[in-house]
Amino acid sequence: MAGSGFGTLIRLSTFGESHGKAIGGILEGIPAGFTLDFDELQKDLDRRRPGQSAIVTQRKESDKVQFLSGIFDGKTLGTPIGFLVENEDQRSADYSELEKAFRPSHADFTYHQKYGARDHRGGGRSSARETVSRVVAGAIAKQILAQKGIRIDAFVDQIGSLQWTGEWNSGLKELSESTVVRVPSLELAGKMEELIREVRKEGDTIGGRIRCVIEGVPAGLGEPVFDKLHAELGKAMLSINAVKGFEIGSGFDSITMKGSEHNDLFTSDGKTKTNYSGGIQGGISNGMPIDFRVAFKPVATIMQSQETINESFEPVSLSGKGRHDPCVVPRAVPIVEAMAALVILDYYLIQNSYRQ
Amino acid sequence: MAGSGFGTLIRLSTFGESHGKAIGGILEGIPAGFTLDFDELQKDLDRRRPGQSAIVTQRKESDKVQFLSGIFDGKTLGTPIGFLVENEDQRSADYSELEKAFRPSHADFTYHQKYGARDHRGGGRSSARETVSRVVAGAIAKQILAQKGIRIDAFVDQIGSLQWTGEWNSGLKELSESTVVRVPSLELAGKMEELIREVRKEGDTIGGRIRCVIEGVPAGLGEPVFDKLHAELGKAMLSINAVKGFEIGSGFDSITMKGSEHNDLFTSDGKTKTNYSGGIQGGISNGMPIDFRVAFKPVATIMQSQETINESFEPVSLSGKGRHDPCVVPRAVPIVEAMAALVILDYYLIQNSYRQ
Amino acid sequence: MAGSGFGTLIRLSTFGESHGKAIGGILEGIPAGFTLDFDELQKDLDRRRPGQSAIVTQRKESDKVQFLSGIFDGKTLGTPIGFLVENEDQRSADYSELEKAFRPSHADFTYHQKYGARDHRGGGRSSARETVSRVVAGAIAKQILAQKGIRIDAFVDQIGSLQWTGEWNSGLKELSESTVVRVPSLELAGKMEELIREVRKEGDTIGGRIRCVIEGVPAGLGEPVFDKLHAELGKAMLSINAVKGFEIGSGFDSITMKGSEHNDLFTSDGKTKTNYSGGIQGGISNGMPIDFRVAFKPVATIMQSQETINESFEPVSLSGKGRHDPCVVPRAVPIVEAMAALVILDYYLIQNSYRQ
Amino acid sequence: MAGSGFGTLIRLSTFGESHGKAIGGILEGIPAGFTLDFDELQKDLDRRRPGQSAIVTQRKESDKVQFLSGIFDGKTLGTPIGFLVENEDQRSADYSELEKAFRPSHADFTYHQKYGARDHRGGGRSSARETVSRVVAGAIAKQILAQKGIRIDAFVDQIGSLQWTGEWNSGLKELSESTVVRVPSLELAGKMEELIREVRKEGDTIGGRIRCVIEGVPAGLGEPVFDKLHAELGKAMLSINAVKGFEIGSGFDSITMKGSEHNDLFTSDGKTKTNYSGGIQGGISNGMPIDFRVAFKPVATIMQSQETINESFEPVSLSGKGRHDPCVVPRAVPIVEAMAALVILDYYLIQNSYRQ
Repeated sequence: MAGSGFGTLIRLSTFGESHGKAIGGILEGIPAGFTLDFDELQKDLDRRRPGQSAIVTQRKESDKVQFLSGIFDGKTLGTPIGFLVENEDQRSADYSELEKAFRPSHADFTYHQKYGARDHRGGGRSSARETVSRVVAGAIAKQILAQKGIRIDAFVDQIGSLQWTGEWNSGLKELSESTVVRVPSLELAGKMEELIREVRKEGDTIGGRIRCVIEGVPAGLGEPVFDKLHAELGKAMLSINAVKGFEIGSGFDSITMKGSEHNDLFTSDGKTKTNYSGGIQGGISNGMPIDFRVAFKPVATIMQSQETINESFEPVSLSGKGRHDPCVVPRAVPIVEAMAALVILDYYLIQNSYRQ
Repeated sequence: MAGSGFGTLIRLSTFGESHGKAIGGILEGIPAGFTLDFDELQKDLDRRRPGQSAIVTQRKESDKVQFLSGIFDGKTLGTPIGFLVENEDQRSADYSELEKAFRPSHADFTYHQKYGARDHRGGGRSSARETVSRVVAGAIAKQILAQKGIRIDAFVDQIGSLQWTGEWNSGLKELSESTVVRVPSLELAGKMEELIREVRKEGDTIGGRIRCVIEGVPAGLGEPVFDKLHAELGKAMLSINAVKGFEIGSGFDSITMKGSEHNDLFTSDGKTKTNYSGGIQGGISNGMPIDFRVAFKPVATIMQSQETINESFEPVSLSGKGRHDPCVVPRAVPIVEAMAALVILDYYLIQNSYRQ
Repeated sequence: MAGSGFGTLIRLSTFGESHGKAIGGILEGIPAGFTLDFDELQKDLDRRRPGQSAIVTQRKESDKVQFLSGIFDGKTLGTPIGFLVENEDQRSADYSELEKAFRPSHADFTYHQKYGARDHRGGGRSSARETVSRVVAGAIAKQILAQKGIRIDAFVDQIGSLQWTGEWNSGLKELSESTVVRVPSLELAGKMEELIREVRKEGDTIGGRIRCVIEGVPAGLGEPVFDKLHAELGKAMLSINAVKGFEIGSGFDSITMKGSEHNDLFTSDGKTKTNYSGGIQGGISNGMPIDFRVAFKPVATIMQSQETINESFEPVSLSGKGRHDPCVVPRAVPIVEAMAALVILDYYLIQNSYRQ
Repeated sequence: MAGSGFGTLIRLSTFGESHGKAIGGILEGIPAGFTLDFDELQKDLDRRRPGQSAIVTQRKESDKVQFLSGIFDGKTLGTPIGFLVENEDQRSADYSELEKAFRPSHADFTYHQKYGARDHRGGGRSSARETVSRVVAGAIAKQILAQKGIRIDAFVDQIGSLQWTGEWNSGLKELSESTVVRVPSLELAGKMEELIREVRKEGDTIGGRIRCVIEGVPAGLGEPVFDKLHAELGKAMLSINAVKGFEIGSGFDSITMKGSEHNDLFTSDGKTKTNYSGGIQGGISNGMPIDFRVAFKPVATIMQSQETINESFEPVSLSGKGRHDPCVVPRAVPIVEAMAALVILDYYLIQNSYRQ
């Protein structure tokens, strides 16, 4: 375990620092013979891309992915898919004052403690730019799952204290994607956008929440005990930059509930009347939609002046520079979908292996 | 990946059904030469044991662990530690009506869907009885960590809507352990115990929350990207029966915070003034206490009559029988500590490997 | 990686020292619903058991396996199969003089260097007694493979310089098993037995070779690059005590061959006229019998006096005591089959996972 | 497990087909702060490179590696090292007739059986071109090991029936590298070169053997039972294209030896008088040189006409085209060193993790 690999039969390894030549990855275990839709794939990258709207960082990256292997005549070969995305807009000069200073609540200090060395430019390896590779891999997994009738929809359901409280159905996906915030309500989208603009004006940032609903997962996916399906989903989500919490189904609300209200009673077709379980019981899918939420903290980079320390533990003052996100949550939607897709496809194949 | 193993250098594999002959496990990778305190270890088992107080299940299990290998003259050998705990009080008859019925919000239905076959008695493999093995392994890991100055304290900080809002310090551990609920307040302990008794009287169950604080972890533990320290802690916690959510530091509260309030500013000794990060930044420990919370749903087994279905999807009625927990949270405290200890020791050794 | 686990979807973890209370293991990933033949399984253990004939060690062990989990009503549950075998005949006194001395070409010295501590009795963890657990697990795998038409036959084809040069077919299995040496020739069996008796009379030991032929493996099993099927088989065989070499198909003889003689030309049914490839090409099975050979060194424990050193590097003299094998190869036949079965079943399931 | 990854703490994943845009890999777990010698690294690539001498394939590849991450200011960052090597000389037209035909003793048939699809050009993923990535990664590992006093020397000790029977010492390395065959004898080098030229003239190929000696490995490296050091080395070697056998120390010769001759008696400094063990006992290094041999079959591509079948199992005739190696063994020397380096560094770090 060296940290940059994920999965068992489907395995993604990624590489790349924020301001190096390129980032990329290797995706192993994708079955052979699948036709990939590269336009669709690029769309997922565009959903994550900086500069896509007025409320995200204006760093300019075209984020065009190059595939180097594993695909032949447009179809997967079954062999590892190697890919890379070049880093184009590397204003490293913006980061020169960071060479010695530790930005508060970033990974500068911890990487320095762990490795002794670090690429200070834009966070280096700890930058969320790494998630480009996850989106590439996840988009491939999503396309394969779609052919098996499994659909993964993530959307923003909270920014600051503005919370969407509607009832989700997959028909809302188009609506949520039509807004720059990626929330399934035009009215709320407007308010959230306004909130993010205000926060940016203050040179500040704000947190948010993403909900993910996965439909079409057959019952029986998951492994007992340590590799429970929601445990692996939780790990996948908690591995995304800025994530501070994960809950499935009733989540933290279950604390105040009684068993008699919380139990999901069966209907005569093996489904359940309620879905407090969030589609998983005992770590294994039960055929209901898998439904979880992910908490994102406010981005640590703010455009306000902050006191901090440098590598000699001397006090230094930092003033925000560069181009950053006042709220990272809208751009994180395809990342949540990507990680969910990788987990579900991995468990799908594992379960498939036991078929007689 | 077959589900019942956990960890990289420290690896725990467990086996056992709730009503089989025995449960147990193999703990690999424990360094050689450590003297184990078996009384201390048994104390951890006793903290998890049924029948320990009036508010938990009255199933009678002495839960005495037998070590079969890996220990010689009281010291670890470096080789795998094999151990087992016999299942003594197996009133399988209590479960005869469950042979065909799926208990709501249990894993009966999903195990049936996954495997086609199952040991229906007491949940079989999906029973929380499996966690005995985790406590054995975790107790060993905890003892080794203690010798390295790392201390793991879990305690209950919420039952239903009763929440402890005090400020934790390790001096409170003795107090929390002196109460049957394992909360660090005598007054609140009384109220919580009363609530649990009431819920039991109704034949119902209630959820709760456990907080875990780990002190003494040096900065630098953790791996970048996918194997972030809190991601692995999250997976470990979400793998515990009845857990529906995990959050670290500010957790879900971070959603409504601004970056300017949330950022943990450094002090001149490399510590931080606040700890919204929960001791981990960029997936790597920063030397502050690691601080997370785990949400437990109300136990699914209730003593009320419930409508459900059987293997032929026909409606059947279930009336609660057997001996069950109205609230599993107090007994889960040593399980949370055990899983945390296994994760921390694993990452400690991984980090150690890079020392020059 | 802590050394005592093996496999990906099928995963075996073992524990136990030679003279501890018991040895055993956990076998994960065995599909649910298989009926096991416990008599057949015990037969495999008996083939490995000490005391089975006059030419093996006379240590008395009944080697009766106890299953603790994963089997219900005689069928596999899909959950981990926990099992143990008690160590009955532990004449630890035989080993008292070994407490400080390092036996030549044993693992005493290396375990001491690695761990600082060791259970010196009978080699502790390094003893071949550990292979009992492999035979238990492998026998289960073999039974499942048999139901899929895959048959694993190992036999002795060399002891010292006595070599069997016949042509193998599975009809010879009964013959080879009818001899105490497990060679498919009565005449050679007599000579080999005589050789072993002579060697024993001298207080010495002798090496040998086992050949393993696996029939019925469908084409397509194996993974490219690092996890080639024969690479994993090789690792599995080299992990068996006393093994010094592994070769597949033409093996070391291929060194002196030309491509024009070595190439296996196809027949019109997709089979090949020759099988120098040993059933595997590019790391993937081609549908021909998988065919490999394993070299075993002479057992290090001899009944002659040897000069050695103790933990203080002082010279000491060792005279052979205890009950040991003059030639371990006949007893290793079921171990080779067991490890082969675990590898093949693991790869079978992995390949199965990609089935549409 | 998807086949293209190797190692535990040090982990290499590779990608790339022979005639795709590029091949490359990700090397994880390399400790931070090491200065790399890129000229030295390129030298290892040049030792593997086609066209380096008259007796190897004349495919033109400059094999210049581009590093994309994990290195900053010439030093390792501790983060994944992403790298790629472009495929320059892709005469795919040479392979057009192979689109449907299965070349004998190549992986065409087995990849087709496994994946249904394949990139037929030059063997695609099964091509030995993939080993470029191994050499890049192994060269890095070798440089780090060198700084720890560990030296890895591989050399050719047999081509066809011409065998080197001298006694190895590291002083011979320069000599062996000065010959195009990489054998430590000028006289034998001449004969071997002549043999290879003759074989090429016939349009044929010939096998050979590589010996690898690793000096400076401290005692104590390796893991018990399944992950024995020589078992992992064996797997690493058997994963190299065209390898049919692996033996350590006495290897297959041990079969005819007696224990009294084979046992390595200790000297007063904890070394041994002989080294039949090949530097490893019980799977753990004993401080003596690690010494193993690897058998390579004759390359399957010959310049003679061969009868074979196509995807419809119809007979077709193949005449050798393209540029190929009459003997692959000289070019495989740096590959053997690379794989050995990756294994040793991985186990070195694992053992390091247990240091107090």
